[in-house]
Amino acid sequence: MRTRVTELFGIEYPIFAFSHCRDVVAAVSRAGGMGVLGALYFTPEQLETELAWIDEHAGGKPYGVDVVMPAQYEGADLGDAGELLAKLQGMIPERHRRFVNDLLERHGVDPLTEEGAGHYLLGWTDATARPQVEVALKHPIALLANALGPPPADVVEQAHQHGVKVAGLASNARHARKQVEVGVDIIVAQGTEAGGHTGDVATMVLIPEVADAVGPDTIVLAAGGIGRGRQLAAGLALGAEGVWTGSVWLTVEEADTPEASRDRLLAATSRDTVRSRSWTGKPARMLKTAWTDAWESPESPGTLPMPMQFMLISDALRRINRAGAGELTTFPVGQIVGSMNQVKTAAQVIYDLVEEYVETMERLNTLTDS
Amino acid sequence: MRTRVTELFGIEYPIFAFSHCRDVVAAVSRAGGMGVLGALYFTPEQLETELAWIDEHAGGKPYGVDVVMPAQYEGADLGDAGELLAKLQGMIPERHRRFVNDLLERHGVDPLTEEGAGHYLLGWTDATARPQVEVALKHPIALLANALGPPPADVVEQAHQHGVKVAGLASNARHARKQVEVGVDIIVAQGTEAGGHTGDVATMVLIPEVADAVGPDTIVLAAGGIGRGRQLAAGLALGAEGVWTGSVWLTVEEADTPEASRDRLLAATSRDTVRSRSWTGKPARMLKTAWTDAWESPESPGTLPMPMQFMLISDALRRINRAGAGELTTFPVGQIVGSMNQVKTAAQVIYDLVEEYVETMERLNTLTDS
Repeated sequence: MRTRVTELFGIEYPIFAFSHCRDVVAAVSRAGGMGVLGALYFTPEQLETELAWIDEHAGGKPYGVDVVMPAQYEGADLGDAGELLAKLQGMIPERHRRFVNDLLERHGVDPLTEEGAGHYLLGWTDATARPQVEVALKHPIALLANALGPPPADVVEQAHQHGVKVAGLASNARHARKQVEVGVDIIVAQGTEAGGHTGDVATMVLIPEVADAVGPDTIVLAAGGIGRGRQLAAGLALGAEGVWTGSVWLTVEEADTPEASRDRLLAATSRDTVRSRSWTGKPARMLKTAWTDAWESPESPGTLPMPMQFMLISDALRRINRAGAGELTTFPVGQIVGSMNQVKTAAQVIYDLVEEYVETMERLNTLTDS
Repeated sequence: MRTRVTELFGIEYPIFAFSHCRDVVAAVSRAGGMGVLGALYFTPEQLETELAWIDEHAGGKPYGVDVVMPAQYEGADLGDAGELLAKLQGMIPERHRRFVNDLLERHGVDPLTEEGAGHYLLGWTDATARPQVEVALKHPIALLANALGPPPADVVEQAHQHGVKVAGLASNARHARKQVEVGVDIIVAQGTEAGGHTGDVATMVLIPEVADAVGPDTIVLAAGGIGRGRQLAAGLALGAEGVWTGSVWLTVEEADTPEASRDRLLAATSRDTVRSRSWTGKPARMLKTAWTDAWESPESPGTLPMPMQFMLISDALRRINRAGAGELTTFPVGQIVGSMNQVKTAAQVIYDLVEEYVETMERLNTLTDS
């Protein structure tokens, strides 16, 4: 296959694979696609370790890194990470803490205590994402992606100085245009069916809108609902020059997804996800569970803005996992989860995508024979 | 173009056009697609008039009729239409009537009175839809479609006896299989981005799921988010053998859409729709307005089950229209509304769809040249 992105990166297939797992990233790149490591959950030191590992295992193939620098969040003006954290902690209402405590108690999970503070802010503030960018740019990455809104213009410039292309996720045409204005090279147009942070417009409608809005000079990748060859073909038909996938990599052999979680993903149907603010404060598609239901219930105090919602719930999530309270466990995942019914290697997923794509093109070409 | 549906119906393009307007239905069929008249708002007598007109104006080309026979609704066991109506009226809570009255009053629309009872039940009960089917089968229709759930098996049989194919709308794979079990010939797999009654799974994910679920003997049409050639190509890539469109016909020259409404549709973006129960009691995608907002507000009493919600609001809708209270006016329409920016003839829409489809296929075919 040959599109502008395969030429640009020297890859065989225009298939991008977002994953938090380095094994998946390296395996996809080796198989001819491009693995993109989600940096969100890593400290700069951890990220350094992960990228050094990928450098050794990607067989010299290009790979990317994805950070989360939201254009807007509560406390954006509050200085460095330590200061920010303390101030934001004070802004979480007691009512919300009580709601989370009560919910966990009802499900037999130990109530929250003050011990064991996690990495609350993750990488989704300017203060926490920038050090990740610094680390990433020391490695031979081919792509720096930003998952929420346009990245700061100076970050784009810095990447370009390192010869690194910049991709930005956009869920509507207006946001896509904004990203192009700050110098983003590749727009990942992501439909509502995608897992994680997502907008409300479906991929079918979004891709042509974004492609028209950014014009022919900007490369568009289709994201949301893509996990098999027919969807790869559909994404390209809609005007994209490649596809951005995420959910499908959660259940591959190389993924570090815990077995219980993997089994639930394999069993879930396309109707088992919901777009909820209960994870980060911004709408994100995830597995519908007692957790997402509780936040929609009449007793819900409503969610807090990013990044306070995750600060509020991060201890709770760790306790839920520790207690194995599966009915509360949730994961960001898209509607394609309904098609993820079998554990395969990452390479097999790539080959199946390409094989079904080729079959699809053969079928389509018979429709206009006459 | 040639797929199983073009062969089956002897049409030029596998493009189905749902419309409540006879002029659109006839124009689409004349242009090589297949027009399908939505019967919902017509009494049997009115439907007879509309179909007689289409018989005269479709130039001998095939057309279809779409009825709404929900598998389940409140009062399904309450006998004939008159009896049903009276009993259901008594089941509408006073709190709901007050909410609607207050909402209209806040917007300066005259409060509801008892005068001028409308056609409250419309065609979406078994008792009201069957007479429509009787009328439709007296005409040379090629297709009988049912918009909500599987049609009763005896209706399918009756249609088949008249040589009429039966299509059923489905928003998930399980419902599609049920429809095949009662003998439906064609599944219209409709994604969440569609206008009107719709499920929560997006077209991109739904079409391959449904196509796999019903197997190769059943024809699948793709619906939801389809209004241009790239989307036609995407729908076929996903595994459909044709596309079912609706929203795009609201703004064509032949449509009887009031000018003020048409202008609002032309101006709306893909983000201006919402899936709401405020129209019929079942989730339907429509233009997001002060009306849909009110039903989502903390003051909302919640919506009633079908068909009581429409009974509750039908007088209100007529009064809103009469008062020209545009901020409350809403229409069922899909996310493709963002691409409806220009008034064209129905024939032009068909030609544009086909032209962009051909361009898309040419572009796709260059991607695998090597």
